[in-house]
Amino acid sequence: MTPTITAFENSPDRGRGLARDMRVRWALEEVGQAYEVRLVSFAEMKAPAHLALHPFGQIPTYEEDGLALFESGAIILHIAARHAGLLPEDAGARARAINWMFAALNTVEPPILERETAGYAERDKDWHGERVAMLDDRVRARLSPLAARLGDADWLDGAFSAGDLLMVSVLQRLQGSALLAEHPALAAYVARAEARPAFKRAFAAQLAVFERSSR
Amino acid sequence: MTPTITAFENSPDRGRGLARDMRVRWALEEVGQAYEVRLVSFAEMKAPAHLALHPFGQIPTYEEDGLALFESGAIILHIAARHAGLLPEDAGARARAINWMFAALNTVEPPILERETAGYAERDKDWHGERVAMLDDRVRARLSPLAARLGDADWLDGAFSAGDLLMVSVLQRLQGSALLAEHPALAAYVARAEARPAFKRAFAAQLAVFERSSR
Repeated sequence: MTPTITAFENSPDRGRGLARDMRVRWALEEVGQAYEVRLVSFAEMKAPAHLALHPFGQIPTYEEDGLALFESGAIILHIAARHAGLLPEDAGARARAINWMFAALNTVEPPILERETAGYAERDKDWHGERVAMLDDRVRARLSPLAARLGDADWLDGAFSAGDLLMVSVLQRLQGSALLAEHPALAAYVARAEARPAFKRAFAAQLAVFERSSR
Repeated sequence: MTPTITAFENSPDRGRGLARDMRVRWALEEVGQAYEVRLVSFAEMKAPAHLALHPFGQIPTYEEDGLALFESGAIILHIAARHAGLLPEDAGARARAINWMFAALNTVEPPILERETAGYAERDKDWHGERVAMLDDRVRARLSPLAARLGDADWLDGAFSAGDLLMVSVLQRLQGSALLAEHPALAAYVARAEARPAFKRAFAAQLAVFERSSR
């Protein structure tokens, strides 16, 4: 059965590919699994039908054969476990790739998201500049060790994996800041991932939704 | 082979069970897997030998038969996948339990950790009070839907799972705030988990480390 995901009817990122359906679309493209998309408005996201799928009233959700999931990390792990292409076969390498998935979401993303949130929730405060400097340093404290670990490798641990997919998705939230450019190896890592045909297909698909909605 | 984890030689939480080795100890106790602990000082955590295991220089790490992992979520998933007791057998129920693991770490923990960080990193700022009010509301925006989903059930989805273990671990960070008490069902959920013999054994083990180190 073709899985169905949800995405913003009107993405606040204006098609820049930063909403979390992008990660799931990309994973589905990497493994060659067709999918359907149901677009939801902000009002629909907070209505009972959607809250039954996603208790926190967000996107994406994933539905397939009666199974419903709502965390992008869990959705991607579910896809990666059922198709070849996103996790190594070897058990140890597989555990390490999953380790990078959690590192992306629980160690690297939180300070990046905190910085992003400050950008809209605290922009008008007179202490905003002081906060941004603190937040930039917290992001740097994640990027430096990440760059050190990546070194001159293409991917974090052998072949491209769901760990790289999530890490790149998280780093893309720094687009437009100077922080990523402080580590050319990380900027190149993101560019390398964005050159993947599966990424391009997923990006085009989410952009098409935004372009239709903004006509 | 008995796995080895790392933990703080001198935990900054003074044995309150909030350091992330506690989650891993608890998972190991739930499945009945013996383990060894190597204590590391703050200096050792930032030294090359530890950074080779944990690129971000934190605890815990997990080593077993040549495999090394460093994210508590990934470690717990690894343990849960190899032993009975933390994930349901049914594939759908298993995917949903893993979904709650990611929800704990990527949706509920970030605002709780942000609030905790503000408590020590921004305490001396004259805008600290304004920030705390914002952060409390961000935490509330997670707790309300979580309480609504839990309802009057004992656990988030059927039997106790690794999803509950991580969700409770995350909620415990609110100890000493009034936020958890705003949702008696969530406070009872945490208390129910803390009454589990495996939790008690793990808590006692990490407390014993602190008590030895503070003699």
